[in-house]
Amino acid sequence: MNVNYKKQHGTDRNKSYASKSAKSKPAKHYRSGTSSKKKSQSHQQKNKPTIRIMFLGGLNEIGKNITLFECNNDIFILDCGMAFPDGDMLGVDLVIPDFTYIEQNVDRIRGLVLTHGHEDHIGSIPFLLEKVNIPIYGTALTIGLVGNKLKEYGLYNKAKLNVVNAGDTIKLGCMKVEFIHVNHSIPDSVAIAIHTEVGTIVHTGDFKIDFTPIYGGMIDLARFAELGKEGVLALLAESTNVDKPGYTMTEQTVSESFERLFQRAENKRIIIATFASNISRIQQIVYCAEKHGRKVAFSGRSMLNYIGVAKELGYLDIPDEVVIDIDLLKRYSNDEIVLVTTGTQGEPMSALSRMAYSDHKKVEVGYGDFIIISANPIPGNEKTVGNVVDELLKKGCEVVYESMYEVHVSGHACREELKIIHGLTKPKFFIPVHGEQKHLRKHAELALSMGMEHKNIFIGDVGNVVELNDTYLKQLPSVQAGKVFVDGLGVGDVGSIVLRDRKHLGQDGLVIIVATLDTENGNVISGPDIVSRGFVYVRESEDLFDDVRRSVSNVLYDCAYENIHDWSTIKNRVKDDVSKLIFERTRRNPMILPIIMDV
Amino acid sequence: MNVNYKKQHGTDRNKSYASKSAKSKPAKHYRSGTSSKKKSQSHQQKNKPTIRIMFLGGLNEIGKNITLFECNNDIFILDCGMAFPDGDMLGVDLVIPDFTYIEQNVDRIRGLVLTHGHEDHIGSIPFLLEKVNIPIYGTALTIGLVGNKLKEYGLYNKAKLNVVNAGDTIKLGCMKVEFIHVNHSIPDSVAIAIHTEVGTIVHTGDFKIDFTPIYGGMIDLARFAELGKEGVLALLAESTNVDKPGYTMTEQTVSESFERLFQRAENKRIIIATFASNISRIQQIVYCAEKHGRKVAFSGRSMLNYIGVAKELGYLDIPDEVVIDIDLLKRYSNDEIVLVTTGTQGEPMSALSRMAYSDHKKVEVGYGDFIIISANPIPGNEKTVGNVVDELLKKGCEVVYESMYEVHVSGHACREELKIIHGLTKPKFFIPVHGEQKHLRKHAELALSMGMEHKNIFIGDVGNVVELNDTYLKQLPSVQAGKVFVDGLGVGDVGSIVLRDRKHLGQDGLVIIVATLDTENGNVISGPDIVSRGFVYVRESEDLFDDVRRSVSNVLYDCAYENIHDWSTIKNRVKDDVSKLIFERTRRNPMILPIIMDV
Repeated sequence: MNVNYKKQHGTDRNKSYASKSAKSKPAKHYRSGTSSKKKSQSHQQKNKPTIRIMFLGGLNEIGKNITLFECNNDIFILDCGMAFPDGDMLGVDLVIPDFTYIEQNVDRIRGLVLTHGHEDHIGSIPFLLEKVNIPIYGTALTIGLVGNKLKEYGLYNKAKLNVVNAGDTIKLGCMKVEFIHVNHSIPDSVAIAIHTEVGTIVHTGDFKIDFTPIYGGMIDLARFAELGKEGVLALLAESTNVDKPGYTMTEQTVSESFERLFQRAENKRIIIATFASNISRIQQIVYCAEKHGRKVAFSGRSMLNYIGVAKELGYLDIPDEVVIDIDLLKRYSNDEIVLVTTGTQGEPMSALSRMAYSDHKKVEVGYGDFIIISANPIPGNEKTVGNVVDELLKKGCEVVYESMYEVHVSGHACREELKIIHGLTKPKFFIPVHGEQKHLRKHAELALSMGMEHKNIFIGDVGNVVELNDTYLKQLPSVQAGKVFVDGLGVGDVGSIVLRDRKHLGQDGLVIIVATLDTENGNVISGPDIVSRGFVYVRESEDLFDDVRRSVSNVLYDCAYENIHDWSTIKNRVKDDVSKLIFERTRRNPMILPIIMDV
Repeated sequence: MNVNYKKQHGTDRNKSYASKSAKSKPAKHYRSGTSSKKKSQSHQQKNKPTIRIMFLGGLNEIGKNITLFECNNDIFILDCGMAFPDGDMLGVDLVIPDFTYIEQNVDRIRGLVLTHGHEDHIGSIPFLLEKVNIPIYGTALTIGLVGNKLKEYGLYNKAKLNVVNAGDTIKLGCMKVEFIHVNHSIPDSVAIAIHTEVGTIVHTGDFKIDFTPIYGGMIDLARFAELGKEGVLALLAESTNVDKPGYTMTEQTVSESFERLFQRAENKRIIIATFASNISRIQQIVYCAEKHGRKVAFSGRSMLNYIGVAKELGYLDIPDEVVIDIDLLKRYSNDEIVLVTTGTQGEPMSALSRMAYSDHKKVEVGYGDFIIISANPIPGNEKTVGNVVDELLKKGCEVVYESMYEVHVSGHACREELKIIHGLTKPKFFIPVHGEQKHLRKHAELALSMGMEHKNIFIGDVGNVVELNDTYLKQLPSVQAGKVFVDGLGVGDVGSIVLRDRKHLGQDGLVIIVATLDTENGNVISGPDIVSRGFVYVRESEDLFDDVRRSVSNVLYDCAYENIHDWSTIKNRVKDDVSKLIFERTRRNPMILPIIMDV
């Protein structure tokens, strides 16, 4: 493995803005002037270079963000995230993109560019690298987190990791990719501008506008403005918070809330649950603890992982004397402690859930605890988070949760922030990304409300391909794309049939019927035996099982009598009769599995 | 069956208020004057009559509301609701209360009193009646809906149903139960006041304060005030919306929104999803459709059920010429139609979901449809509702959902409304009911903020029993209570073991190993065969299954060689070896089921 730290070549954004914008070229007016070209368009289309954008994930879903940009014979990949399984993907650990198109075009892939270090942007990288070992580009914290992840998968040594800085531009084939500093809920996040002979495309990545962030300074709005003046062919912008009016609050808000709550906690032990990746949040907690003379302990494997990388790379300032090991908690009184933990989403195996259900090996909670959940439930997790809160309350803990006391701010731009980016970049074409259909729609409506033409907006889906240049945007035939399920070590070996069976088994359980038959004459030599799981209390249902056994015996006797030796016919008749009997008696449909052995 | 329509005996509230409150007795001052009695309290406690309240459901949960009131040798039950299963109650259809305590005390039960006709208040009645056939009291619509439900279960003929009016008082043993008109999201809802020799207890049922409801007039606040003046020993009030500030909007708000949206829909077909039980909402839709010259069709079995009862009893005014059968939809153009449907919670089998996923037999949706979801997602359903909205949007429908355009108002009192009830009734003791722990806590805090003493508030749990009279409230030992699962025809035959197996099967699938052995020497006569479901794609995992088969053969050979004939030992050894092998190869833990047959 080699991590290359890119030297600042070309533009140092922080210095060159003023001069650049002063002598900037007159903006290209993308919105007008195309109609006159219409006549010769069909001729021109054939010769004009174009850019193609392929969406392998991140549309009509939250997570699994991955987009391909193709110009001439060059392709680069933007982000490579995973998604968490939906409730109906039983037993699935992770969902990753289908990499078929990438594998088929590996010769043309120039690299993987990352916007930031969240799992929905980097989580699938190990699975990609196992197929194609392409160079990876990202800022220092992002690459640090990717490196850590690759070590877990034993892929670190062969990986080609390259560290860039916001403001840098790298060349990937015929495309130049520029990194632009943005604010988000993890430091070192960037948007990108893709400079090509066809025009410039801006992709925001995940972002918000924070004038007073904890780390890294405000988003480089000036660069967005400058790009807008130079002319932006297309904008791809994230849509997560498009249904939220106004502006996202600054991360500083949380500092003030923590300050008030630390005072209110008085002599209680403070336990704060937050996202492990929210480095700035953790930094604020550490500072606040220090100020109030409390020690900080951390709980949760992912928490320790993130903190390790962030501290090593200088993104987190944690004085050694402030931190204590979680094993030493008992040496301190409640008012000397802040415990920072994972589990904001009520995940059953997380530290906070274990505390709530008295299942944590090292921490027991009760009346002496003041617990702050510094995050909002992700849609779909409301119920499990609510259950954890209820359990903590029942134990006597004081709990600050949901939108009480501004203990959390989002990392995603609300409507007015999105408008700023639209207004500054003034793109000809707009493609809303990172969101479910309703988000993409609302983001398109936002663009329309700002004067964008309907025909210049594209709402896409996973697998879609669009081609664009300065005169048109059109959809091409889709490429192979979709969800690949990871379950344990298996990647892609759980599909719709396996999931359908899991659902059936999970809902109704199963009834197995086993019998050994004489191969010669079909007579029953042993059984039929009935085994069931997840269906009914067997001991209270002996009558039912006796009847099932009798019914199976009758079928087997009939088959032998009718000289039927085809096992599958026999099995089907057993299955039909047993299903019918069980449904009549119970109104349930367990999976019926007849197994016939022959001797 | 006999439905008794109670004659107005005693007080006709609407007439007697003015005179009553004019000559009302001086209020008992519960909040003061008790300390002087302290010395003789222990003596008095033994002789003073008391009331006991038993909570068999509705605390620390949403739904399954059922409370028992006991005085001297008399008990009555208030409501008998069901709850929907949580996500971890796989395959369970309904959750009902544990009726053991009721069965054990059947001789003392004087009746079941109902506050309104929602499933979380009447849904378990059929299961109760199958055990104890007690008289049931409720307002006309409530009893109508109960009767309809009992017909489905074949219990209507033996049921003792009694219709009462708001303002009536009935005698149940030594207790008098008075019905007080309240507003809620179903007409004919009541609170109750229980008059006993110990004092008066007020239970709000589900309620809101609506000065301009669609049906039935505003809540009888005057009676709450009068009771407060007379002296209320204890208040039990619902807590559903205690975390919502301010006041719930009036149902009239929805009328205005519908009016605007009907105009905006222009030539599109209008489809409105709402709760089938929200009779007033359906009434508004019908009026609005009539005004705009549209016909109304209904979809969804429960919708037709509720409408049938409500229409028959005069709670719903639907002119015949406005309604059309859903089969005749195609005879009308889009702008002539309003389709009212179930499915506001994204339930997979509901009419709206079927439309979204192109699985509805009679309705196909697309660009010509303007869809209004006139309800909020119940916590836990956000994701499924969101998915349905996304599918409808993808089909090109225009969709109005969530808190857009005020197309839904809650049926539950917000904080300021709760304060009005607390302020008017001025109870000595307060017990928050109908809510999860966080709701009960917040409701207790609300009472504290209004001057209630901490010791006079009781936050309970299912099974808890409290005893109270005018000097004390204390907790007694709990009674048997809890969740009973209904799955198909089975009531209570699905318990923790069955659910644990369903969860295991649903997450990881199963691997069955079958072999037939010679009883004499333990030699394998047939097999071992491997059958799996919900584990992996079998065809792509032949190597793994070959190895499993080999491993089982080895174990069976070893056992025969070691002269082990104890089937359970053999099974355990097979299970251990196969589990280990499969986990090593896949990092998964399917259920392993060894089945040994002997000949």
